[in-house]
Amino acid sequence: MSLNGKKYIMLVEEGFEDLELWYPVIRLREEGAEVKLLGREKGKTYIGKHGVPAVSDCTVADVSADGIDGLLVPGGWAPDKLRRDKGILELVREVNEQGKLVAAICHAGWVLASAGMLKGRKMTCVSAIVDDMVNAGASYIDQEVVVDGNLITSRTPDDLPAYMREIVKRESK
Amino acid sequence: MSLNGKKYIMLVEEGFEDLELWYPVIRLREEGAEVKLLGREKGKTYIGKHGVPAVSDCTVADVSADGIDGLLVPGGWAPDKLRRDKGILELVREVNEQGKLVAAICHAGWVLASAGMLKGRKMTCVSAIVDDMVNAGASYIDQEVVVDGNLITSRTPDDLPAYMREIVKRESK
Amino acid sequence: MSLNGKKYIMLVEEGFEDLELWYPVIRLREEGAEVKLLGREKGKTYIGKHGVPAVSDCTVADVSADGIDGLLVPGGWAPDKLRRDKGILELVREVNEQGKLVAAICHAGWVLASAGMLKGRKMTCVSAIVDDMVNAGASYIDQEVVVDGNLITSRTPDDLPAYMREIVKRESK
Amino acid sequence: MSLNGKKYIMLVEEGFEDLELWYPVIRLREEGAEVKLLGREKGKTYIGKHGVPAVSDCTVADVSADGIDGLLVPGGWAPDKLRRDKGILELVREVNEQGKLVAAICHAGWVLASAGMLKGRKMTCVSAIVDDMVNAGASYIDQEVVVDGNLITSRTPDDLPAYMREIVKRESK
Amino acid sequence: MSLNGKKYIMLVEEGFEDLELWYPVIRLREEGAEVKLLGREKGKTYIGKHGVPAVSDCTVADVSADGIDGLLVPGGWAPDKLRRDKGILELVREVNEQGKLVAAICHAGWVLASAGMLKGRKMTCVSAIVDDMVNAGASYIDQEVVVDGNLITSRTPDDLPAYMREIVKRESK
Amino acid sequence: MSLNGKKYIMLVEEGFEDLELWYPVIRLREEGAEVKLLGREKGKTYIGKHGVPAVSDCTVADVSADGIDGLLVPGGWAPDKLRRDKGILELVREVNEQGKLVAAICHAGWVLASAGMLKGRKMTCVSAIVDDMVNAGASYIDQEVVVDGNLITSRTPDDLPAYMREIVKRESK
Repeated sequence: MSLNGKKYIMLVEEGFEDLELWYPVIRLREEGAEVKLLGREKGKTYIGKHGVPAVSDCTVADVSADGIDGLLVPGGWAPDKLRRDKGILELVREVNEQGKLVAAICHAGWVLASAGMLKGRKMTCVSAIVDDMVNAGASYIDQEVVVDGNLITSRTPDDLPAYMREIVKRESK
Repeated sequence: MSLNGKKYIMLVEEGFEDLELWYPVIRLREEGAEVKLLGREKGKTYIGKHGVPAVSDCTVADVSADGIDGLLVPGGWAPDKLRRDKGILELVREVNEQGKLVAAICHAGWVLASAGMLKGRKMTCVSAIVDDMVNAGASYIDQEVVVDGNLITSRTPDDLPAYMREIVKRESK
Repeated sequence: MSLNGKKYIMLVEEGFEDLELWYPVIRLREEGAEVKLLGREKGKTYIGKHGVPAVSDCTVADVSADGIDGLLVPGGWAPDKLRRDKGILELVREVNEQGKLVAAICHAGWVLASAGMLKGRKMTCVSAIVDDMVNAGASYIDQEVVVDGNLITSRTPDDLPAYMREIVKRESK
Repeated sequence: MSLNGKKYIMLVEEGFEDLELWYPVIRLREEGAEVKLLGREKGKTYIGKHGVPAVSDCTVADVSADGIDGLLVPGGWAPDKLRRDKGILELVREVNEQGKLVAAICHAGWVLASAGMLKGRKMTCVSAIVDDMVNAGASYIDQEVVVDGNLITSRTPDDLPAYMREIVKRESK
Repeated sequence: MSLNGKKYIMLVEEGFEDLELWYPVIRLREEGAEVKLLGREKGKTYIGKHGVPAVSDCTVADVSADGIDGLLVPGGWAPDKLRRDKGILELVREVNEQGKLVAAICHAGWVLASAGMLKGRKMTCVSAIVDDMVNAGASYIDQEVVVDGNLITSRTPDDLPAYMREIVKRESK
Repeated sequence: MSLNGKKYIMLVEEGFEDLELWYPVIRLREEGAEVKLLGREKGKTYIGKHGVPAVSDCTVADVSADGIDGLLVPGGWAPDKLRRDKGILELVREVNEQGKLVAAICHAGWVLASAGMLKGRKMTCVSAIVDDMVNAGASYIDQEVVVDGNLITSRTPDDLPAYMREIVKRESK
């Protein structure tokens, strides 16, 4: 188990893409990492786009960038809600500034755009939001996973194998 | 009936905000206008975010900017899908270039951003997408309705009375 | 805005036809009128036939016929429940006796029948309930909107443009 | 099995009250009777108010009053649709004129009202439609089951034991 | 009414097969018996596989085998949950040991298997669980209803007429 | 990627536990393996217990035990349907007889019981089906994952990290 002792945050909100949230969470746990779900309310059951539930473990009040090794953002409609929360954007920004893992798949790029951390970064995302990413200063690349330092991004659920392969590789070092 | 003889297009896709599509459509019909629903397929039943159905009357192949007096875009998740269609973006651009009504509410601004028509325009939208609008060159104003020439925009379903008051006023001249 | 200062009540119950409730409510607000939703419970979220929610603002305990300019009844299955409530039937009767607007669309005629106000009145309704209306003493006419003094009625959601055109015309005088 | 060789029709349409359709159907089959479901389409799956499915065996084109021993109508929203069908109303009328069993529970009375067979009949029904029944000429009695010759009626699903007790008793003679 | 004064328990849990629970309950009531629904919580609304609700009247704490004449188990997914409850299995065992009616349809056999009461018994069930029944010591027979002393079993909802015919016959003696 | 060139089958049917199907599928793909979904129909979209879809790639007619490296069975209600299919049971038996991976989680043990491959095997499963497993000859152990030669089993979705850790470990050798 290559990630023993490491700690990660997965953001959660209504309408998350079910597998884009759960595959990374269970995958990191398989490697021995501790993963907590962070929502705008604690102990709340959020329902995914297809119907899978996910209970939040904590809020931004319980977590600091210093205390974690990275943060992941699921796709679906959750990012549309997450990006409205200033505390969550602040946490994303700090994790990025500390050079820790920021991982985003599908529509998750919206959260990074609103956190103001995409200027000059190479990344990928679902086709629908490419214009928003480019307008936010990102350099878009159409491939299954893009690694730009601490920023790892993918396009859709089909990219999950490549996405987690790169995430585990980087975090295991 | 102040809009007798006028013709409008309402865009439609899965997950449209139910009232943001239907209130303007019925309202324009009350004034005597002809309103058609344009989708990526013709004769297809699209289901709104809450469950109200809407059947498309035509596709971009059946319509030209020359033949209509304006185009409206509903909110909800429909804009996320509509902006991926090049033919639809082209139609929006042409309607705008001819100085005809382009009306957008809530998340509909995404379609205008991808049509590349927001540079230097005053507008409003739902809070979630303000960053995307500003990054696309728009000047965001937080009020129930913003009229900037042929562009009329509102924020949420609560703004529908003000939105349609301005649309009917402009189009009745 | 031709209805500034006027006050209306829209009745609400589970299973209301979504557009038959919301189109008239928003339309009257567009003309400057104040519209409140009256249900058998206050502050309750009722869900429309297709899924659109509507929160009640008040109950019959909060309203009197003297204090309003008219009352509207939506279709769908809501009328089947509304007609079981004696307080609501009493309010409908008083509004009618004061010669103020009573507007009913689709299945809403059931509420008027149970309020005992249809004898000798000209009206229209959805085809399913024509027998009930005629048995209650009404004179049924198959057209998009029927105006008989203070009573304005329509058949289905397709008639909403004609319905509200007549309602706004009468109330604006 | 007291009803061996007897044949009955249960009407079916979207939104039937699940137990008001299925309890009588299975109950008559338990007594050896043949029961067919008659809908406006043949071989169609109709879904009950709560979600139980029911497939229609035949339409009015396949059945005559002469060939059956009686007809039953379920409650729920199905009667609102059934009463719009002239062929079905004609069949109900003929079964009644031949003095054969006509059984109706809950909202099913609407079908009898539109068939014009309630004048001077004693009956019961769900509270919501009492006014419609009385206006159609019926004499309403508030009890779990009312037997008036060939007409047997009940109020709600809670009355099913009494309803079928009387139906089996009459038909077994 | 052949079962006046008799008392039965129907077990209830989420996902019960709607008609396999309700048809026997109403049928026994039609014969004058008192039937109570026993769940793991009292006064809770359980929802059937298709959507029909059922409210529990009591728990095992309120009932003893001595005080009832028999116990019925519905099919659907409810048996998968019921068999995890030791108190319920104990009640089933006692009712069986007292030679009182134990009736099971479809997947209900799982509850009997976990109660350890199938060794050497003749029975039937839905095809999916035949292996589990045989492994539990039962002798499986593929027919609509199997009566082995106090144990009465059927396969699917289509067998309900035969199932209740045998149950009422045995209990009426 | 430790499983390059390996081929696995995941069984699929209506009501599969969403994560118990998708987590192993994507996980094996992350390691470079080819994973196909085998259903009773090809190209059919099956819906998980919570709502996640899964399209079948093949049927038993397209696959032989010789051509694959192992087979996995998801939990949920899918096993109740899968165990009724003789072709599928035959495939499971052959994979087991060839000493290739057979992996089962939650309710998936039912398929192994009906395939007749549990006699004398150590295994685990969801609590509800322990009696069925023991009656089928298995030796039940209550721990997150049990490895008995080619048979790897777990109890619930919470055990997925341990389950896939053992599966990848065995298959990577």
